[in-house]
Amino acid sequence: MVYENGKVSQLKIAYIGGGSRGWAWMLMNDLKQSSFMSGEVYLYDIDYNAAYDNEVIGNTIDGEGWRYKATKTISEALSGASFVVISILPGTFDEMEYDVHAPEKYGIYQSVGDTAGAGGFVRALRTIPMMRHIAASIREHCPDAWVINYTNPMAASIGALYREFPEIKAFGCCHEVFGTQWLLTRALKEVEGIENVRRNEIIINPMGVNHFTWFTSAKYQNIDLFKTYEKFIDRFYETGYSSGDINHWMNNSFACNERVKFDLFRRFGYIAAAGDRHLAEFMDADDYLASPEVVRSWMFGLTPVSWRKRDLENRLARSKRLLSGEEKYRLHNSGEEGTLQMKALLGLDTMVTNVNIPNRGQIPNLPIGTIVETNAVFRANSLQGVSSGEVPPSIYELISRSAKENDYMVEAAFSLDLDYAFTLFSRLNMLKGLSKEDKKALFTEMCRGSEKYLCDYRKGHIL
Amino acid sequence: MVYENGKVSQLKIAYIGGGSRGWAWMLMNDLKQSSFMSGEVYLYDIDYNAAYDNEVIGNTIDGEGWRYKATKTISEALSGASFVVISILPGTFDEMEYDVHAPEKYGIYQSVGDTAGAGGFVRALRTIPMMRHIAASIREHCPDAWVINYTNPMAASIGALYREFPEIKAFGCCHEVFGTQWLLTRALKEVEGIENVRRNEIIINPMGVNHFTWFTSAKYQNIDLFKTYEKFIDRFYETGYSSGDINHWMNNSFACNERVKFDLFRRFGYIAAAGDRHLAEFMDADDYLASPEVVRSWMFGLTPVSWRKRDLENRLARSKRLLSGEEKYRLHNSGEEGTLQMKALLGLDTMVTNVNIPNRGQIPNLPIGTIVETNAVFRANSLQGVSSGEVPPSIYELISRSAKENDYMVEAAFSLDLDYAFTLFSRLNMLKGLSKEDKKALFTEMCRGSEKYLCDYRKGHIL
Amino acid sequence: MVYENGKVSQLKIAYIGGGSRGWAWMLMNDLKQSSFMSGEVYLYDIDYNAAYDNEVIGNTIDGEGWRYKATKTISEALSGASFVVISILPGTFDEMEYDVHAPEKYGIYQSVGDTAGAGGFVRALRTIPMMRHIAASIREHCPDAWVINYTNPMAASIGALYREFPEIKAFGCCHEVFGTQWLLTRALKEVEGIENVRRNEIIINPMGVNHFTWFTSAKYQNIDLFKTYEKFIDRFYETGYSSGDINHWMNNSFACNERVKFDLFRRFGYIAAAGDRHLAEFMDADDYLASPEVVRSWMFGLTPVSWRKRDLENRLARSKRLLSGEEKYRLHNSGEEGTLQMKALLGLDTMVTNVNIPNRGQIPNLPIGTIVETNAVFRANSLQGVSSGEVPPSIYELISRSAKENDYMVEAAFSLDLDYAFTLFSRLNMLKGLSKEDKKALFTEMCRGSEKYLCDYRKGHIL
Amino acid sequence: MVYENGKVSQLKIAYIGGGSRGWAWMLMNDLKQSSFMSGEVYLYDIDYNAAYDNEVIGNTIDGEGWRYKATKTISEALSGASFVVISILPGTFDEMEYDVHAPEKYGIYQSVGDTAGAGGFVRALRTIPMMRHIAASIREHCPDAWVINYTNPMAASIGALYREFPEIKAFGCCHEVFGTQWLLTRALKEVEGIENVRRNEIIINPMGVNHFTWFTSAKYQNIDLFKTYEKFIDRFYETGYSSGDINHWMNNSFACNERVKFDLFRRFGYIAAAGDRHLAEFMDADDYLASPEVVRSWMFGLTPVSWRKRDLENRLARSKRLLSGEEKYRLHNSGEEGTLQMKALLGLDTMVTNVNIPNRGQIPNLPIGTIVETNAVFRANSLQGVSSGEVPPSIYELISRSAKENDYMVEAAFSLDLDYAFTLFSRLNMLKGLSKEDKKALFTEMCRGSEKYLCDYRKGHIL
Repeated sequence: MVYENGKVSQLKIAYIGGGSRGWAWMLMNDLKQSSFMSGEVYLYDIDYNAAYDNEVIGNTIDGEGWRYKATKTISEALSGASFVVISILPGTFDEMEYDVHAPEKYGIYQSVGDTAGAGGFVRALRTIPMMRHIAASIREHCPDAWVINYTNPMAASIGALYREFPEIKAFGCCHEVFGTQWLLTRALKEVEGIENVRRNEIIINPMGVNHFTWFTSAKYQNIDLFKTYEKFIDRFYETGYSSGDINHWMNNSFACNERVKFDLFRRFGYIAAAGDRHLAEFMDADDYLASPEVVRSWMFGLTPVSWRKRDLENRLARSKRLLSGEEKYRLHNSGEEGTLQMKALLGLDTMVTNVNIPNRGQIPNLPIGTIVETNAVFRANSLQGVSSGEVPPSIYELISRSAKENDYMVEAAFSLDLDYAFTLFSRLNMLKGLSKEDKKALFTEMCRGSEKYLCDYRKGHIL
Repeated sequence: MVYENGKVSQLKIAYIGGGSRGWAWMLMNDLKQSSFMSGEVYLYDIDYNAAYDNEVIGNTIDGEGWRYKATKTISEALSGASFVVISILPGTFDEMEYDVHAPEKYGIYQSVGDTAGAGGFVRALRTIPMMRHIAASIREHCPDAWVINYTNPMAASIGALYREFPEIKAFGCCHEVFGTQWLLTRALKEVEGIENVRRNEIIINPMGVNHFTWFTSAKYQNIDLFKTYEKFIDRFYETGYSSGDINHWMNNSFACNERVKFDLFRRFGYIAAAGDRHLAEFMDADDYLASPEVVRSWMFGLTPVSWRKRDLENRLARSKRLLSGEEKYRLHNSGEEGTLQMKALLGLDTMVTNVNIPNRGQIPNLPIGTIVETNAVFRANSLQGVSSGEVPPSIYELISRSAKENDYMVEAAFSLDLDYAFTLFSRLNMLKGLSKEDKKALFTEMCRGSEKYLCDYRKGHIL
Repeated sequence: MVYENGKVSQLKIAYIGGGSRGWAWMLMNDLKQSSFMSGEVYLYDIDYNAAYDNEVIGNTIDGEGWRYKATKTISEALSGASFVVISILPGTFDEMEYDVHAPEKYGIYQSVGDTAGAGGFVRALRTIPMMRHIAASIREHCPDAWVINYTNPMAASIGALYREFPEIKAFGCCHEVFGTQWLLTRALKEVEGIENVRRNEIIINPMGVNHFTWFTSAKYQNIDLFKTYEKFIDRFYETGYSSGDINHWMNNSFACNERVKFDLFRRFGYIAAAGDRHLAEFMDADDYLASPEVVRSWMFGLTPVSWRKRDLENRLARSKRLLSGEEKYRLHNSGEEGTLQMKALLGLDTMVTNVNIPNRGQIPNLPIGTIVETNAVFRANSLQGVSSGEVPPSIYELISRSAKENDYMVEAAFSLDLDYAFTLFSRLNMLKGLSKEDKKALFTEMCRGSEKYLCDYRKGHIL
Repeated sequence: MVYENGKVSQLKIAYIGGGSRGWAWMLMNDLKQSSFMSGEVYLYDIDYNAAYDNEVIGNTIDGEGWRYKATKTISEALSGASFVVISILPGTFDEMEYDVHAPEKYGIYQSVGDTAGAGGFVRALRTIPMMRHIAASIREHCPDAWVINYTNPMAASIGALYREFPEIKAFGCCHEVFGTQWLLTRALKEVEGIENVRRNEIIINPMGVNHFTWFTSAKYQNIDLFKTYEKFIDRFYETGYSSGDINHWMNNSFACNERVKFDLFRRFGYIAAAGDRHLAEFMDADDYLASPEVVRSWMFGLTPVSWRKRDLENRLARSKRLLSGEEKYRLHNSGEEGTLQMKALLGLDTMVTNVNIPNRGQIPNLPIGTIVETNAVFRANSLQGVSSGEVPPSIYELISRSAKENDYMVEAAFSLDLDYAFTLFSRLNMLKGLSKEDKKALFTEMCRGSEKYLCDYRKGHIL
């Protein structure tokens, strides 16, 4: 790593999950536009060919400032890296099919199924051993690197990285909060007539757990956006607000009209800050997810895994076109912050944004050590949470329950014992209407669906 | 207050202590150079004439963007203000003469006498009732204003403001930390040969109590400045490092060669970040302040109050020259951050810098509520401490003891009872070598020296 | 104080409020039966004659082991005391009439009016300056004494004692918890057929704020009483359970059939542990106190102050009979624990029971310093809270809100400013249905009713 | 389990390490004298024959109230147990020989070598996987049982139990504190002339980590024992105080004259409360353990493992005599509290004594979750820490460092990775004088010595 004229060159980035056809391309896109740094990106993936395809695509997009290189071992990717990006798919969509749809026969509908509840839990059982392996490798090959995770379940992944290697310098990034900032710019326009406000001019105090983050304050210049938002909701509560013009590259889902978010504000007095599909999964099952009809009435969508499979085929096809040169990659503004965070960590800037890291006091009334999402300050080789104040009473039960369920996932996966995992699984709020027998049958079916990825676990009475 | 084109106009600032011939001129200097805001500054002072002189001087420096107006009542200054600046002298230098010099006959030397120990304690007894009055007035006239305090003792003043009016939005600013950042730029030059680094490019994690703040990390780009500083000290430990070219407008003292700071680094492994004159007062009396000879050997100076009196005469003379037009005020870069903090609080910027505010978890192993100095994030109508981690064990006793002594000052002053105050005074670390009788005689003499300003206190066995 | 043969003699107890015709006689009753200690009780009261009457009555009950003596000054009572008992009436029932009944014209009904909500708040404004005076006197005359408070509002009183004199060794005792332990012995009998269990064999984990304490566990030997209580409630939910045979000397109210308690268990899953009259005041106004009819349907009673006035006449008449010898005092088992606590603090025993003291971590998710009720260990000159675990999520909002309101009372009274007090008063949960104008009219009327006792306050816009 | 007439019968106790020739006989001794309970003790040991010998010995001592039964599987021992006692030897004395003596060639002397520093660390690497297995078995077979551990390293063992099974109801008991209480009874006799005070009449506030616990207060009736102890030390500082008449059954070491304890009081102002052999290992290596000569000058002893081997032979011989009937077991007062703790947990009593459990706020300035030793309250199926206040500044660094080293042990063992374990090993305070190479050579040698018990670990660069 060399500093010269306010720029950094000869930087090494390791990308774990380097065969990805989503986040990897986004990173290539953003690196190409990051004139303040250059170097090499090592792509490691259990599917080497996918990583190699990305090596080719990457070097096509940008073979000067940044060179891409696929590796066959994780150690080659990590040795000497200054940054590690983790974006893996824990298992395949076949396993995810069980995560999302197995619970439906018990009347449990999940709109995403990758973060909380039954689906998030079993996904965590698959993910966490992988994260442990990654953390142990980082400890061995590049213990001082900064580690950026995009993998879900986010909180459980970050928790696992820190539990395996407590000195790891890891954080998790998620753009869900951005969408709610953007929604507030819409409210400013609709209610106050103020246009052209950029997302990051909306000053927020986010707190909570990933995908269930809340703003306890939101301001634009001297305007208290809580009042603006209240009026905005009064106008759009029934019809919802169509975010038609947002078109995020990862937004692989159906229309969402923000009605869940509006309703949560009315019920609890704070701004829930994630997509409605995520938010609904943290509430009681009969609030917003009682049935497909109820979901429709709240104007969001259930994302079936069949959709994801089709979407993957589209991305594979695009990969082929990019490889063959049939399609040329178009640079665009991704809206993601990864390269800006790197810039600040390299000491070239100061940045304040939301991240997922262990609670070290930034939220005093949540347990120390649980993974929370708050603002943090990025500066030279330094990342520090912002003291966000206590979770307000009206949402305390919701958030502390969710944090506890995230801790359950880590606990369950570290025990490497499916019997114990079931004990914790059966306490999930999402399942509170099921009998013990049904819970066990469900858990058994879901574990069977993920069996290939649970080989290190003691099977006990489950499998 | 009006927002237009990224600028704020019609802003009202109240300046308590508006007759000041130091901080007030600095503020005028900086406001004149703040093109992003304009409005009125109301100057309130118990010495109305001094405030009026500053009205004239202020309007000479800048009668367009900012208008200055002296007021006879505090309510007129505060009503409708968006910012309140507090910079008062609690009593006169006659009282301060007792603070600093009365302890000398017991062998207690103080290099400043306005923050910690015997001098700081009695100064706090005078200051805190004034702060209570100011806080109560703010509660009545402008409860939503942001309050910036420059008055010493800083921690006790901030503590008093919050105890009187818990919802106050107050913080304390101090430039001592800046001096140590600047020293690190010198180390970069001397050790690494890197020149022209600006102070605020030195990225620090400050923690502690005002005038006894420590850096637990310091970085420049990818350089760990702890290693640089260690080598710097190895070179200059004996001779000291002469900061000859620093020439701060408030630096009203004698030469200081940083030897105390160097020694503290060797003893405790962290970078003490205030002037040596301040640091010495927080350590044991026989460490650096055993006698004037010992002080000389450590190459810093005792500041006699006679010097302050002469210095005041110089400033009064300058005031006259500015009033008569004989001298024209020269704009310069003050190095202070007050107007930049205002800019960020108005929502025009994001700023990360060190402030003094109550501990809300930013330092998890100091008591909640005690006044700490750490970094904080300034954004639109929002100030939040940065989670700074725990005080490291080697300096924990020093800092927790100092925080406790600051709490004693507030406790003593709020009891309005000199007997109780004496109980706490007699526990000060600075006095640990004195007999109970000597402590009482000393406290009695010091209180007698401040008698005019202690009229609200129950006298008990003291006066 | 002399220790001999496991007994302590020549002990001095100061009784502040020594003219009391309730708690004072109870103490005399219990001291007469405390063979392990003897000494003198000094009775101080602003009504000296009442104290003198009690001197006579006390010496009639027990002129050997214990001598009673009325004093005209508080200093004479306190000097050299090892224990201080505080049981005062803050004002008279004329003031209390406003506390309880003034809110009724706004539809706010209070069943007691001495602890929480509007009545508790204004009572606190009267009480806290008295507590400050008592604490300052203790600091002067017997700083090492143990201080037992029985005065309501309990939490605000204890908070005031500690805020005035942070080193005070004070705690507050309340028997409301005992009544719920007793109720659990009834449940054991009705549900399990187990008879003759004593109250203190019911092992509980109490937590919360005074008069709104909850059991998060309750056991008898190896029986989990939560299951027992659930069945008990299933049987008696509709009819209530008549605690006909409890006949506590202080139980100066109307029938209560525990239906509020039963309902709270069903709603929140934990055992509320105070009389229903108290519990109702901590919930939303329309839960149990919407109207006298609603109160009747929940089978508890509103206590009009007229009843208290008649009750006082009865006690005065009894005082006369005791003085004249017409009635002889009958020793009985009071059920109170004050003398047992003294025994343990003297080092003659170990005792675990519930008390009100500042939070030092015993309830980690309530603010440090707020006054909480939990178990504590009494031993030789030592009182330590028991680590009670976190407040469970379902009741967290209720309890943290109540703790905050108690802190408001102390904050308001220490500001000595009725304007500021009104700001806090207007945030009380009990008043959330009122307009700002109604709140102000109500507060003004209530303050006017207490005007004689608010002479030290700045009146502002209120009076 | 049956309750009748205040007694419990048909109780099942599982003893893990049931072949023990120390703690097991002590438990038999105490159970025989516990008239309040009866039942069966299942003895499980990896050495079945040793367990079977104890079955015979146990049934000889007490075949009526209690029946003893050796089992071949841990599940048979645990199923249905109400209490589990853990007292195992992690490895043999051959491994311990490396723990204690390998460091000596680097000048590191350890007086015990089973708790802290290099020896404690490697012992923990052997112990923790065993504890994980036990905790997982308890989770499976008797998750509601109370678990009492006597195994060292205590803190790391308790930490491992909770980390594997967070809901476990485990605590660790250690009699070291008792010895210091007993020493205070000697001080009472020597200084105040008060005789015949029993150990548990000394009321203490213990805090810290096991084998490095400190009293921050100590009282007997109304006597402050800190003053007594200070005078006692003044008399015996040079000569030491010979505790010749203490003759504890486990006191398998050499003379100790309490000089380390005396010196620690003078240096830090609090009473260190463990045997000098343990205390010395927590201080800097050159304080009390610089060389065998220094150890002698402080009048305590190094315990060579050869002594332990001889001692074991003696106990084996005694076992044979007890089996053959040649020797009859003599009941005596063991001074241990295990059966009294069981009595309280069964709901038959209330008990306050010191235990090792996770910090849940009982020591607010140590990390939540680290294993601390404080007082706790034992009652019906309930164990709660006593709020012990903050660690005082003068000993904060010592205790927080030790707590952190205990956490290192758990962290290292849960990673199952010797490379990572070495990273943490090399930070131990005991080793701070060694070069990195020496640390690695030492760790490698010690791991080799324990190789048989480290088979589950990834060997990395170590073995």
